Amino acid sequence: MPPVEPAPTLVVLDLVGIFVFAISGALVAVRKELDLFAVLVLAGTTGLGGGFLRDVLIDATPPAALADWRYLLVPVGAGLLTFAFHPTLGRMERLVTVFDAFGLALFCVAGALKAVDYGLGPLPAALLGMVTGIGGGMVRDVLAGRVPIIFRGELYATPALAGAMVAVLMERGGLPVVVAALTGATVCLAWRLLAVWRDWQAPLPRGSASV
Amino acid sequence: MPPVEPAPTLVVLDLVGIFVFAISGALVAVRKELDLFAVLVLAGTTGLGGGFLRDVLIDATPPAALADWRYLLVPVGAGLLTFAFHPTLGRMERLVTVFDAFGLALFCVAGALKAVDYGLGPLPAALLGMVTGIGGGMVRDVLAGRVPIIFRGELYATPALAGAMVAVLMERGGLPVVVAALTGATVCLAWRLLAVWRDWQAPLPRGSASV
Amino acid sequence: MPPVEPAPTLVVLDLVGIFVFAISGALVAVRKELDLFAVLVLAGTTGLGGGFLRDVLIDATPPAALADWRYLLVPVGAGLLTFAFHPTLGRMERLVTVFDAFGLALFCVAGALKAVDYGLGPLPAALLGMVTGIGGGMVRDVLAGRVPIIFRGELYATPALAGAMVAVLMERGGLPVVVAALTGATVCLAWRLLAVWRDWQAPLPRGSASV
Repeated sequence: MPPVEPAPTLVVLDLVGIFVFAISGALVAVRKELDLFAVLVLAGTTGLGGGFLRDVLIDATPPAALADWRYLLVPVGAGLLTFAFHPTLGRMERLVTVFDAFGLALFCVAGALKAVDYGLGPLPAALLGMVTGIGGGMVRDVLAGRVPIIFRGELYATPALAGAMVAVLMERGGLPVVVAALTGATVCLAWRLLAVWRDWQAPLPRGSASV
Repeated sequence: MPPVEPAPTLVVLDLVGIFVFAISGALVAVRKELDLFAVLVLAGTTGLGGGFLRDVLIDATPPAALADWRYLLVPVGAGLLTFAFHPTLGRMERLVTVFDAFGLALFCVAGALKAVDYGLGPLPAALLGMVTGIGGGMVRDVLAGRVPIIFRGELYATPALAGAMVAVLMERGGLPVVVAALTGATVCLAWRLLAVWRDWQAPLPRGSASV
Repeated sequence: MPPVEPAPTLVVLDLVGIFVFAISGALVAVRKELDLFAVLVLAGTTGLGGGFLRDVLIDATPPAALADWRYLLVPVGAGLLTFAFHPTLGRMERLVTVFDAFGLALFCVAGALKAVDYGLGPLPAALLGMVTGIGGGMVRDVLAGRVPIIFRGELYATPALAGAMVAVLMERGGLPVVVAALTGATVCLAWRLLAVWRDWQAPLPRGSASV
């Protein structure tokens, strides 16, 4: 199935999401006192990794990011910016978290709807939407030598899965794509921001774990 | 090449293998005191990771697990079960190891024969069979932040490679697929169980390693 | 696009690069006191990982290494050799570094030109060349449980990106492929060897990183 040419608005939103994710990757590299190259690689893998994982799994290769130079320049720009101004960016952590929630909302919905376009069923499509949203951060954490932060009780993947599911089901139900996408993204965004604000945690296993 | 529709027995065996591997992944997450989401993700990647790696490398995308909801529900079920009953499961470690050996035997043979179906030669097909068997556990350990346990002297990959090799060569030699598969799986299973029972170890490098 | 049949000289150079990279992977495993199997797996992933990543991203699957047994035997040979003679190889560290620079120069150029053959633009092709050169080492370090060494101030990826870029631009400019490849490889090799010799480092972020 040929990929559909995305609308300009979607491309802009996509690039914003990549930019925000790339900054979060670059900040991890700066805090681990890694060098400029590591900053750029972690910016790139965090911004683009989720989409790469999705595209490889649904056979939409080469990934869009490799066929469009804007997708490559955005993480480079985010990495250089972080490298130069990281003390300022570090102080704006709350703002970065909010932007990151926007990126997550956008990616999970866009990823799920792309998987639907490539012929996947609703459940796998929603899961691939979640992978698109959380994949970049997981690759970032593995490369930076730490257990993925989304495993540590943060409510991060659940909102992404919920948003992707809502978007897929509404689109299946015959609603216009733009309505499905906006509703799914809003569900993900609201849930994620509430989780940050209220400090909601994912449940931990009961009792002593080291049996 | 279109994938052949697998027989119902094979699908059931496949799901059993995924279930057992998923439990081993979920147990690692529980012991590291990770949250429910991490338990589900590690259950999923351990159960499905090896097959995903194989399918991406032989271009059998999207992987079967993304086109069949049973392949997705089995690791979720295994993860929830482990999350709820981990003290009991932890005490049955020996049983889990035995089931895991069945999973390994099944995956290495199924993976190798699928690679043959997609046109690969005997040696690469056997290697992909091994990757199918051990890949999920390797992804699990990397995500959980530890060196893959199969690197630590456990005799785990060698039985998988041997079983895959036997199955591929017998199928090449004109024997019925079911005979080749059963013999290969038996070789892998017997070797692995003997290694567990007798505590066989893979050889370690001689002398001081930190030259 | 069908892959072009590579010239015999290129195959030999490719195998030399895989051999050298495989030795570096096997040495890491030996130093971590991992077992024989880990030595072989790290030899294989370091030697072949970069090419696998590239081939999966440009959809050149199954990767060449899975269709040609020589590509599989070379890392096995390198792993066995390292396992047997690691004290000697460990003393030849400087020599291994020089050979590794040759491998890097070769891989970045070959990877970039292959990506061009598969229809990618100059910037993505150069990036994939860099990924081909550095990917194996990154997978090695993640599997061995350490932050990729190329993140630790070593000037390693920049020469690879530069060499790949030079080769792609010269080939685009109409020069014969062999001239483009040799010039690109020379740029990468010279820069990398100078960086080793002069102990050049990639820039680190200013000031306290733990904001």
